[in-house]
Amino acid sequence: MGKTIAEKIFDAHLVDKPFGDVSVLRLDRVFCHEITTPIAIQDLVARGKDRVFDPDKIKAVIDHVSPAKDSKTAMQGKILRDWALRHGIKDFFDIGRNGVCHALFPEKGFVRPGFTIIMGDSHTCTHGAFGAFAAGVGTTDLEVGILKGVCTFKQPETFKIEITGTLRPGVYAKDIILEVIGQISVNGATNMVIEFTGPVVDAMGMDQRMTLANMAVEAGATSGICLPDMTTVQYLWPFIKDEFESPEEALAQYSRFSSDPDAVYAKTKTIDVTSLEPMVTFGFKPDNVKPVSQMTGTHVDQVYIGSCTNGRLEDLREAAAEVAGKKISPGVRAIVSPATPDIFKAALDEGLIKIFMDAGFCVTNPTCGACLGMSNGVLAEGEVAASTTNRNFNGRMGKGGMVHLMSPATAAATALHGVITHSDRFKS
Amino acid sequence: MGKTIAEKIFDAHLVDKPFGDVSVLRLDRVFCHEITTPIAIQDLVARGKDRVFDPDKIKAVIDHVSPAKDSKTAMQGKILRDWALRHGIKDFFDIGRNGVCHALFPEKGFVRPGFTIIMGDSHTCTHGAFGAFAAGVGTTDLEVGILKGVCTFKQPETFKIEITGTLRPGVYAKDIILEVIGQISVNGATNMVIEFTGPVVDAMGMDQRMTLANMAVEAGATSGICLPDMTTVQYLWPFIKDEFESPEEALAQYSRFSSDPDAVYAKTKTIDVTSLEPMVTFGFKPDNVKPVSQMTGTHVDQVYIGSCTNGRLEDLREAAAEVAGKKISPGVRAIVSPATPDIFKAALDEGLIKIFMDAGFCVTNPTCGACLGMSNGVLAEGEVAASTTNRNFNGRMGKGGMVHLMSPATAAATALHGVITHSDRFKS
Repeated sequence: MGKTIAEKIFDAHLVDKPFGDVSVLRLDRVFCHEITTPIAIQDLVARGKDRVFDPDKIKAVIDHVSPAKDSKTAMQGKILRDWALRHGIKDFFDIGRNGVCHALFPEKGFVRPGFTIIMGDSHTCTHGAFGAFAAGVGTTDLEVGILKGVCTFKQPETFKIEITGTLRPGVYAKDIILEVIGQISVNGATNMVIEFTGPVVDAMGMDQRMTLANMAVEAGATSGICLPDMTTVQYLWPFIKDEFESPEEALAQYSRFSSDPDAVYAKTKTIDVTSLEPMVTFGFKPDNVKPVSQMTGTHVDQVYIGSCTNGRLEDLREAAAEVAGKKISPGVRAIVSPATPDIFKAALDEGLIKIFMDAGFCVTNPTCGACLGMSNGVLAEGEVAASTTNRNFNGRMGKGGMVHLMSPATAAATALHGVITHSDRFKS
Repeated sequence: MGKTIAEKIFDAHLVDKPFGDVSVLRLDRVFCHEITTPIAIQDLVARGKDRVFDPDKIKAVIDHVSPAKDSKTAMQGKILRDWALRHGIKDFFDIGRNGVCHALFPEKGFVRPGFTIIMGDSHTCTHGAFGAFAAGVGTTDLEVGILKGVCTFKQPETFKIEITGTLRPGVYAKDIILEVIGQISVNGATNMVIEFTGPVVDAMGMDQRMTLANMAVEAGATSGICLPDMTTVQYLWPFIKDEFESPEEALAQYSRFSSDPDAVYAKTKTIDVTSLEPMVTFGFKPDNVKPVSQMTGTHVDQVYIGSCTNGRLEDLREAAAEVAGKKISPGVRAIVSPATPDIFKAALDEGLIKIFMDAGFCVTNPTCGACLGMSNGVLAEGEVAASTTNRNFNGRMGKGGMVHLMSPATAAATALHGVITHSDRFKS
């Protein structure tokens, strides 16, 4: 009987099967940021277990509040910084070199097909875009991971979602994942891995695949995953070129981590996106989705383009193409946060930063706190945001605020008009 | 008997002299930001006096926490925004168009020689660089100013400080003002206006004059002031060219506001800066100053370049010249906050933003909260900052933090070395 990619990764990392369908896996990576890791560090210190399993496999960054907004967040940064220094964690990204974890770590070449990755962050599933099993965990699992390099998981079932058809111009991975969540609901993949397949995913670049995998958790999934292919290899090539004779050889190796044709899935679903419109959320759950045409004219106070979902270079290009030579509506404020310094610099070289500033956007340094109402773009009571982030929970971007999730192109168009509207990219 | 510029401005704006040396002055400008003005607005509303004396003379900006860091600061921004809209205050600078008030308002052409200006901000004295009387006020004065367009002042005496000699390369206005405060102490000009004169001031551009006037308050002064000259006129020319036939005619008009040769000063002091070294503060008061050579080697955790004191284009140029092609020390983090969008865009066009990013700086959007430990660069307990800001009070940039004030060039050099050091610009 064939196996899914998730099952193969579990098999390859199995350390113990203490009981039933519970597996203890060896970890290839433990990722850390300054909001959830300091709690784990302080607890490990308090227990006399201030050690790390392997400093080279731990990567850490300050990203949620950058630079620090108050004494508390300054101390969270300091705890992480001192810990990285104390344990020889070389890949610690301090203010200036830092970016949004789920954009920065792939960009630095820290992810491989077949890897197991944990982090104290719900959107760790993003790294599944590379064919890794990557999952967000709580403090206790994070502590064990840091200390022992292992993590305990329930053997996950896989929900295969095949994306077929042809995307219309102006429709992106963000619209697809919103449609997926709308169809299967926020509990549609609880305790499962979502495997994204099909010709539409095959045709996507890594930025779009990361957007797709990123929001798997919003359907309840433990992780989202895309099968490694030549697109994956090409992205990783600068980091793996000494390990392989050729990209083809790398692909052959990585293809060990691919689902077998006769793999068994708990669920399967095929979605033809040929007639898909750009999508937007309307309520307080990510499965409250509608086509943009049904929400056109909805007033917004703030537009936010960025985050681990949509702060990458392709996202900025799509948004900049929409606003180039134009001005945002006087009734709206707009913020763009390039996800990493390299993305910022590339956007600068391509003239995108200038385009955003000339249009009236506030261009922040790489950071992501706005998404969860933590920094750099919090809403006031009663305000409405158009946002490229991942969660529209009640008050997510600020107490009493409303969030409409959408693609960067739709968000950019919304900034120009002050109300939700289709982008010029979209040709119906 | 001749008069000082401050006396002439008082005469020209006198509305009433209720008793003794107390004068009620007509105001040309009331400047507002989102930290101190919302309190005044809410009080005016509560008293049934939600009016403004002249929406064209009120200018408002969100600058201290931009974008909002939490619900409270989001609401402060909202109160200011709604008030500006409600009263037709056209010059309200929201997120994206906003910058540090004391850099933005001059840049937008809102200041003239001879103007009276108040704001709920201690460094309002910055605008004195243009030959205006500009003073920071408390909430009650701000409310009266907003409502009636007047403010009550004690007739100030003037402390004339003449700067003579020739500056060595690498010594700037910031070093001069630190030396001045060091010599006359933090109470040296209490209840006075400091008039900065002499050939060194005459030779300064407006950016440097603003740095000088900005810190007058740190010597206790009500305002700092520079005499208007052709440098002032040239800076303002784009905004006044329809009012005058020629710059010469403008200067002739503005020279009504200049001190008479036989004006009477409460104090005078001449400082020859020929042998002045770059200066740095060492304690918790701005008059605790030493030459950089006496502080060389002092460890710092964070370098901050920005603020109303030193976030202007000349400042960024000086700092960028120091760091171009180099990397900041691994042991330090460095932040640069261009003071306004136009400064940011000019720095972008000149390649300075790229230089800072390549060196490892975090380049934030225009904002100034780091200076007072309010946002975007707060220190953790026990940390030390090298900063181009204006106050080194205990805990100013974060509880338990230490601040060493210095010029942008010295701060840039300190970022490269991780310890306080002379810049390469300085030739002793």
